[in-house]
Formats: sequence, C-alpha cells, structure tokens
Amino acid sequence: MEIGVLGLGRMGRIVADRLREGGHEVVGYDVDPDTVAAAAEDGITPAESIPDLAQQLSAPKRIWLVVPSGDPVDAALDELDPHLDEEDIVIDGGNSYFEHSIRRAESIDAAYLDCGTSGGPASAEAGFSMMVGGPEWAYEGLVPAFDAVATGPAGHDRMGPVGSGHYVKMVHNGVEYALMQAYGEGFELLANGRYDLDLEAVARTWNNGAVIRSWLLELCEEAFREEGNDLGDVADHVAGGSTGTWTVQEALEQEVPVPLIYQALAERFDSRASGDGEGRFARRLANRLRYGFGRHEVARQD
Amino acid sequence: MEIGVLGLGRMGRIVADRLREGGHEVVGYDVDPDTVAAAAEDGITPAESIPDLAQQLSAPKRIWLVVPSGDPVDAALDELDPHLDEEDIVIDGGNSYFEHSIRRAESIDAAYLDCGTSGGPASAEAGFSMMVGGPEWAYEGLVPAFDAVATGPAGHDRMGPVGSGHYVKMVHNGVEYALMQAYGEGFELLANGRYDLDLEAVARTWNNGAVIRSWLLELCEEAFREEGNDLGDVADHVAGGSTGTWTVQEALEQEVPVPLIYQALAERFDSRASGDGEGRFARRLANRLRYGFGRHEVARQD
Amino acid sequence: MEIGVLGLGRMGRIVADRLREGGHEVVGYDVDPDTVAAAAEDGITPAESIPDLAQQLSAPKRIWLVVPSGDPVDAALDELDPHLDEEDIVIDGGNSYFEHSIRRAESIDAAYLDCGTSGGPASAEAGFSMMVGGPEWAYEGLVPAFDAVATGPAGHDRMGPVGSGHYVKMVHNGVEYALMQAYGEGFELLANGRYDLDLEAVARTWNNGAVIRSWLLELCEEAFREEGNDLGDVADHVAGGSTGTWTVQEALEQEVPVPLIYQALAERFDSRASGDGEGRFARRLANRLRYGFGRHEVARQD
Amino acid sequence: MEIGVLGLGRMGRIVADRLREGGHEVVGYDVDPDTVAAAAEDGITPAESIPDLAQQLSAPKRIWLVVPSGDPVDAALDELDPHLDEEDIVIDGGNSYFEHSIRRAESIDAAYLDCGTSGGPASAEAGFSMMVGGPEWAYEGLVPAFDAVATGPAGHDRMGPVGSGHYVKMVHNGVEYALMQAYGEGFELLANGRYDLDLEAVARTWNNGAVIRSWLLELCEEAFREEGNDLGDVADHVAGGSTGTWTVQEALEQEVPVPLIYQALAERFDSRASGDGEGRFARRLANRLRYGFGRHEVARQD
Repeated sequence: MEIGVLGLGRMGRIVADRLREGGHEVVGYDVDPDTVAAAAEDGITPAESIPDLAQQLSAPKRIWLVVPSGDPVDAALDELDPHLDEEDIVIDGGNSYFEHSIRRAESIDAAYLDCGTSGGPASAEAGFSMMVGGPEWAYEGLVPAFDAVATGPAGHDRMGPVGSGHYVKMVHNGVEYALMQAYGEGFELLANGRYDLDLEAVARTWNNGAVIRSWLLELCEEAFREEGNDLGDVADHVAGGSTGTWTVQEALEQEVPVPLIYQALAERFDSRASGDGEGRFARRLANRLRYGFGRHEVARQD
Repeated sequence: MEIGVLGLGRMGRIVADRLREGGHEVVGYDVDPDTVAAAAEDGITPAESIPDLAQQLSAPKRIWLVVPSGDPVDAALDELDPHLDEEDIVIDGGNSYFEHSIRRAESIDAAYLDCGTSGGPASAEAGFSMMVGGPEWAYEGLVPAFDAVATGPAGHDRMGPVGSGHYVKMVHNGVEYALMQAYGEGFELLANGRYDLDLEAVARTWNNGAVIRSWLLELCEEAFREEGNDLGDVADHVAGGSTGTWTVQEALEQEVPVPLIYQALAERFDSRASGDGEGRFARRLANRLRYGFGRHEVARQD
Repeated sequence: MEIGVLGLGRMGRIVADRLREGGHEVVGYDVDPDTVAAAAEDGITPAESIPDLAQQLSAPKRIWLVVPSGDPVDAALDELDPHLDEEDIVIDGGNSYFEHSIRRAESIDAAYLDCGTSGGPASAEAGFSMMVGGPEWAYEGLVPAFDAVATGPAGHDRMGPVGSGHYVKMVHNGVEYALMQAYGEGFELLANGRYDLDLEAVARTWNNGAVIRSWLLELCEEAFREEGNDLGDVADHVAGGSTGTWTVQEALEQEVPVPLIYQALAERFDSRASGDGEGRFARRLANRLRYGFGRHEVARQD
Repeated sequence: MEIGVLGLGRMGRIVADRLREGGHEVVGYDVDPDTVAAAAEDGITPAESIPDLAQQLSAPKRIWLVVPSGDPVDAALDELDPHLDEEDIVIDGGNSYFEHSIRRAESIDAAYLDCGTSGGPASAEAGFSMMVGGPEWAYEGLVPAFDAVATGPAGHDRMGPVGSGHYVKMVHNGVEYALMQAYGEGFELLANGRYDLDLEAVARTWNNGAVIRSWLLELCEEAFREEGNDLGDVADHVAGGSTGTWTVQEALEQEVPVPLIYQALAERFDSRASGDGEGRFARRLANRLRYGFGRHEVARQD
C-alpha cells in the first residue's frame, strides 16, 4: 500500500525503508531538504512540505509520524488536518504521552493510531515491537504496513482504544529502566566483589541458557566487549527519564506500588546530582545500555 | 568420557541424559533405588551406593553431584572422599553457598569444581548456563562434559578459582528476583490501569522485538496463556529466597547498594506476611514464574 | 482582633477556641446549624451564612477557612468574594494543594494566606505548627492571631509568597509518612525478632534520651499502651495518601530522589491491596499513629 | 554505690561524671595515663591497670566498660575475668553486636549486662537512654547507677535476657538511619523546590508543634543555623554503618522487610562511591547530623 512517512530522521528512515522492503510505496517528508533528497535517491518519493505530502497520497491517506514527541506532533497535525477526512489514518509512532494521543485523536478528522514502538535504531534489521491503540478498522487496514515495520505479524498488536498503545509503551519503558538497573546492580556487585571476573564472559555465559538471559543482557555483553570490563570512561550519568516519570505518575494515580521502577528512575536523578567522581558501576552500565538499544549519546568522563 | 552422576532427581536426571546424548558414559546413583532402576532402563549404569559409584569409575574419576544444597553435599563428600585422590574431580552442580564450596574444596583430596547451573528443569532440551569455579586443569578436563550439559561451548565458562562459580550464580539469582519483580510491577500496573488489556498479547508483542524481551518475559507470556490474564487462582505467596538473601548479605559486606534486589527479596517476605486477600499481582506473577523456570510448586488461593 | 472562622468542625473549633483564649473576638459559621449553635454557647458569635459572616466583620475583614480541602474551599471563596476587597485577608488553614492556593490567590480580591497547619486535633492544647505563604503585610497583620493558634511565636512563620505555606506542609507530610514507616519497620523487627519484648517499654526508654525520640515515638508508646504490644485488632490498612502523593509528584518534577518517602507511600497502597491476613506490623502501627495525631479512624480487623 | 569505669574517653568520662553527680564513687581506668590523671583531678579514683581497677573495688564489684566495640571489649574481659566471681557485675555500655554479648556473658564468671546507650556525647547534660539486657538481679542491683547516667528512672529499662539490650539498640540505630534520611529527603526537596526557603526557619516552625517534631529535627535546625541553609562545605559523604548493617542482616534472618532502613544504609554506601561533586543534600545533612548527636567528625568538601 501507499504510505506517507513524516519525519525521516534515524527512526523515520528505518520505518520508511522497512515499508519499502515490505513492498509498500513511500512518500516521505522531513524539515531538512537534504534528508529528503537523500531519501529520494533510495527510492522514497519526496514531498516538499506537509501539505504536499498529504496531497501526493491517494485516498484513503495513511500517514506515519516519526517526529519527536511533544510540540512537533501537534505542529504536524495542524498542517495535516485540513487535508484529511475521516477515512484517512494518522499513526503516531513516537513516544507521546498517552493522554496527548487521546486529545489529538479527538482533535482531527482522520482516524488516529498511537503506536508505541520499541527496539530502537538497533532493531533496524530485525524489526520493532509495536503496541497500537485506536479504532479496530484503522489498525486492521494497516496490518500489512505493521507486518513490514515490526518483526512480523507477532511483533505488533492492537492493545485497545486510542491511547492504549502509548500507555503500554510507557509501562514498557518503566520496566526497561528497572531491568537495566537490576542488571547494573548485579554487575556492580561482581565488579566490587570477591573475585576478579571477566564480566563479558559472565554476560556471555548467562546469555546462553541462564534464566536471566535477554536482549538487554546481550547489550551488556556488547558493552563489556566494546568498553572493557571496567566500562572505561563511561560516566555515571544517566540521561532521559520522561517515560519512566510518566509510569510512576500513573502508578501513583492508580495506587499501584512500583518501588523497583521508582528506584531505577531515582537512580537517574541521583546520577545527575552526585557529581563527577568514580561513580556507581550500575549507572554507568545503564548509561551505556541506552546507547546499545537507542543510540543515545554516551556521557563520558572528562 | 566416563562420568558418575550422584543424585538422579529431576535435575540430576537431566544432567545424566544430556551427558549420554553427548556421547558420554554415565554411572548413576540415587538414594531412591527405584530412581536408579528407572535410570538403568534408559542406559545409565546403575550404582548401589556412593562407594559403589566411586569404585565403578576408572581413574581419573569424575563425579557430578546433583543433590540439594546444604547437608546432602557434605554427606556425599564424606562418603566419596576415601575413594578419591588428587587426580579425581568432583563437581557440585547445585545452588551451594560459595563459602561452603571453598571450605569443601579444602576438605577433600580431589579437585573441586563449583558449578552454578541456571536454566532449571525447563532447560532440559536447550541446555543450561554453567558458571564454573575451580582449578583450571580440572575445568579444562571436563569441557566435553560441560559442552554436553550446557547449551554448548558458549553456555559454560570458568569464572575463576573455587567458589567463583557459585558466587556468580548467587548474584545471577539476585538479579533474577529483581527482573521478575520488575516485570511484575509493569503487569500489575497494566492490570489495574486505564485500559482493559490482554496481557498475553502485551507480553507476546513485547517478546517480538521490544527492548525488554527476554526468556523471563516468554515465561510471563506462558503464564498468562495458561492461567489467564488475571492469573486465576495463583496466590500472592512467593516462596524461596536463600540465594537472594545471600546476594544482599554479600552486597552489605562489599558496601554495594542493591536496592532493587533488596526490594524484590523484601516483597517475598511481605507476600508471606500479608495474608490471604486478593493480593498483589506482581507477586502472584513472580510465584508463577518460579514454576516457569524451576518447576517450583505454585501456591494457589484456597 | 476580630476574626471570622469559616468551618467549625473539629479543627475549626480548635482554631476558634484558641483565638478566643488568645483574647480575640470570633465570628463563626458552619454548614451545620447545630454546630453553630453549640459554638455560640461557648462565646463564638454565630453567623447564619457565609455572606452573614462576612458582613458581621468590620473592615479590614479577616476570615480563616477551616474546611475540607478541594471543592469546599472554592465554594466558600465564591460566596465570600463579593464581600471582600483588597484590604481584607483570607487564610486557608487546610491541606490544600499548593498550586490551588496560587490559583485561588489570583482569583479573589482579598489578600490570600495559605497556612499549612500541623499537629492535628491532638495539639488542641499545645497549639499548632503553622507554615504560612502569602504577602508579607497580610502575614504581619495576623501575627497576633497566629501567636494564639500556633504553639506561640516560634510555632508559625512566613515561608514565602503564596503557595509556599501549603508547599512546605506538603513536604512535611511526605516526611511524616516516612518517619512513621521507619518506626514501624523497627518495631516490626522487634516484634518478630529474637526476644520477647515489651514494646511500650522500648518506646518509653527511647523517648527518654535516645537519638530517635520524637512526638511520633510518643504516639507509638501511647499506641502500645492503649492497644497492647501486639496492637490488638488494629488492621494492616493505612488510609490517606494525598499529600504524600503530591510530595512524590513534586519530587519527580524537580528530579529529586525521595526513595524513603516513595516507599512509605507505596506501603500504604500495598496495605490496601494485600488483603485481610495477619498483615504487616509496621503498617498496622502507621494506621494507629494516624489516629494518634489526626484522630483519623482506625481500621480494625473484622 | 561504688563503680569502676573502664575507659575514660569522651563517653566514658560522661558516664563517670554522671555517676559521681548522682552520688556514686567511681574508680576509673584508661589506657592513656594522662586521661586517668585528668580524671583523678576531678574526683575519680585512679586505677593503674585493669587488675588494679578490679582490686580497688570491694565485693560485689561493678565494672562499666566504655571502650570501643569489638576486640577492646574482649581484651578488657580477658584481663578482668580472673578478678571477678559470680556475684560481680560487668556492664558493656558500647555498641557491641548482640551475639558477641551473648558469647561474652557465657565466657565470664560475673553477671553480664549489655547496655545499649543512645544520646551520644550531646546528651552529657540531659542523660542517656539505656536499653539493658541480662539477669534481672544484676539489673535491679544497678538501678541507682542507671538512674544517674540515664535521663532518670524512665530513661532505662531491662529489655530481657543478655543480648537484648544491644539488640534493641541495634534496631534503634537502624531506625535512626532511616529517620535522618527521611528528613534529608524533605529538606533536599525544599532546597531544590519552587520556593526560596529559609530552611532553619522551616525546621524551627516544624519543631514547634508539628507532627514531625523531634530531637533529630532540632539537630537539623542547629545544622542550618551553624552551617547555613545550603550546608556550606559539608560533604556528601556519610561515614559509619555497622549497626545499620547488623539491623538489615537481622531483618534478613527474620524475613522482616525493612526497605526504608535498607535504603538509608544504601545511601551511605552510595555517598562513598559517588564522588566529589556537588552531591545530594539529603546525605550532606545526614553527615552533619551525625556530628549533632555523636560528635562524629564532619566530612568537608576540599
């Protein structure tokens, strides 16, 4: 099918490429004309503006937003809305706050799918996990596109009505913080413990058959291989935190205790306040893991 | 090679079978004669007693203990010791406390390998992750056996001198507690949150491409599939806790903060004190996951 | 001076009585006419309605709200506003959310003082601690009234501009949750520990000279004296939580780690979800302490 | 009565002086002859050695140890034992581990009282809180001495058999860690929050009538008065931790969750690992409070 991709940065470009590899036609737009030109060379039909993107698509139009969460989403919708009617579908593939997705769905004529997307740039080849909220007909209509961008049919599903996709993704990220910190605690103890251990070998042994094997543990193994068993100059400074904060806020609202998720978030705050010393190994590992899956810049010691 | 397996319970039998499938000859003994007889029918050479097991093996003797941790290990070593000399090798494949392994290694003439084994009965087919401590020559001599019982050559490694295998396994288990609780918090929030969600579908979608995908998350998916999205009558009662307790004790000793691991352990204590009410979803899931990987009995609501 | 007290419930009546004992004239109103009549018998000038209360006061009018936080405050202000001008002063003595106080201050013509009030009904005789936010002139003008209602001149102070009084009270309550839980953990360990202890004697000994002596510990001592060392039928069910939730939300906003306050709040959520069993001693004590200072009803086991 | 005080350092001297002020005769010994000489000038009968101390006392002998916990206690008992019989009484007034007290009681002929002592040097004038374990007759016999050294009759009590005094003191200290950290979290939030607050004024207002008023909060007030509202150059480095570690270890043993106490202890470990940056206000306050009650040296930023 024909799909417009609005935003051709690192993630947007992966979405567009996976759609094309899946046999779909892609019209693409980005605020940066060079980015659009580069995409055009690779077979993506270029659009000059958001209205141009909308107008190039035949009805029903399907437009996938891959722009930073927050104002850029609203700005894009403002420009798109005049060109859309109720048979069209807009997908927000970013990390939007779920209540914003509910508000946005009500504010535009087109159907709105909020699509929580996990896996990060590192999943370009294998595909993403996609948690989708919104009207069933709209989700069903886009299944071929989701099949292409996700890891396959098992890698996406409709969670429920609008907002539920970003809601489930929000909780996913809260869990993600806690998992990273849990591995970090284990490796910090090993790094400071009674034996002189090769942490890469520990991680590799665990990744082959142990109960705690996981993709994040593979990223730990990669981190030790690339940075050394002492994590070299990786700093004790963990950036980010908005989705984790939302998760804790929602848990407060629902009166559900989430002490591990809270603590993992608090460790991030702590890492930013605690200064420039040798630091905590657990948080240095979390810093590095965020590069592993999300290509977030690694803070380094001066 | 020829190997004696002492203890033919669920885990011991898996070790013996995987050794035989790997082309090794196995002499087996168990306190239960019926268990020995059943093993004999499947090609394991039966022994009538611990001394008999030792005597049937040709030098250098290799004996793999798969008995419950604690006194049974000491009892077995007491009986074995008169039949072993310094060219022989004893492997403790259980969840022993690492300082006990150090003590035991010093108390017997044979070389002693402490082999932390993760994966549980559920890994019978795919093989285990094995963290081995002890003399390098002894480990090297047993590599073919470890290749057979572990997931393969990548599934086992020598961590360091004696004690280090059980030490790394101890920390593994501490991390395991925290990971289970982290997933539990996420699913508890989803179960009590704003949307009516199919938690099995959430877990499946996450397992296909999401950052938090893992074997434990596959076991969550299985739990929801088999027990229902509300976990049915699975009780809020998480048993076990010794390896997690050891991990926290060691972290206190090393002055390494492990708040997530501590909290996950404290939740187990809490689940046992808090009574018989509806309970906390997170801990009900942890209860069920312990069956998933370890075939530990699931506490059910009356 | 002449002061109107709006709301003559348990706390309002204490405020009115302490004002009168301090030599001030009090006009009082309550939605319940019987409450007004009872107050009138004790020397409080009765008002028939909110407008009547406002009209009975001579300029500049000073009106002290002691109504439940939330809508009742807004409802009272709606009725008062037409009768007030910028030389008048309204005090909100309840547990309002600080951002509501900022909004309310902007919405009325009179000066607005937000007055966080700690000590609870139990402090009727000794007086309260009062944290006041708002314009300096308004605070200064009311110092004689605060002297009377607080423990004295040292028991009240202007924290800063409007909102700061309720802000500091909010944080006070967050700390209060954590202190209660900290004592609770200690007594739970003693109750389950190696010695058969008289917890009332422990608390009394601590209250006389120990580093951890405090008013809350005196309330623990009282709780053991009145309920018994096993806390009798006091349930593991801690109600309340709004100010603690606000504290954690604000800490998330400011990226300040507050793990103890968070955990104390989470224990309340946990106590409500965990059912009707024997329960956790720490939370049963927190339940009882809330009666100690706030006369909140004690949840009892059936 | 006549009492020997073994150890005349800061705490020992306070014990000796309070005994004398209470009308008792004190024979004193210290490893430092100058300390003994100084004490002699103030009316304490000097002893030249531990045997000399024992021999100067008439039967039944009562000897109060105020030496550092650990080996010094055992060394003193070794020297004392030959001079004592079963009618004599030894008091250990230090922070000994309760199981050591049980062992020591069994190893000497004299009765043994383990006396947990709280209040620190700052309580020299007002007297201490004393939690005593050991035989009832021995405790009863020493009540006049405890009356003098404690805040009075209400400031000491027999908790139970030997070990129980140090056991209750251990838990007291665990609670103390959590209380300090709870106040620290509140002040850290206020210091980083929305208003420019005078933290000394906040603490003073709270100390006069608020629910959270306490001696530790008075020490917070003192800290802000003496160091400034930003705590000046007080470092984010909290020393100590042995009694808190014992408390957590015992809670693990008893399977009692103590997440606040654990977290407060972990914050100490964290403060030592996290380096020399601006640091966490909560822990800087805890650092300063340890001086407030215990005259522990304050770590300062370079």
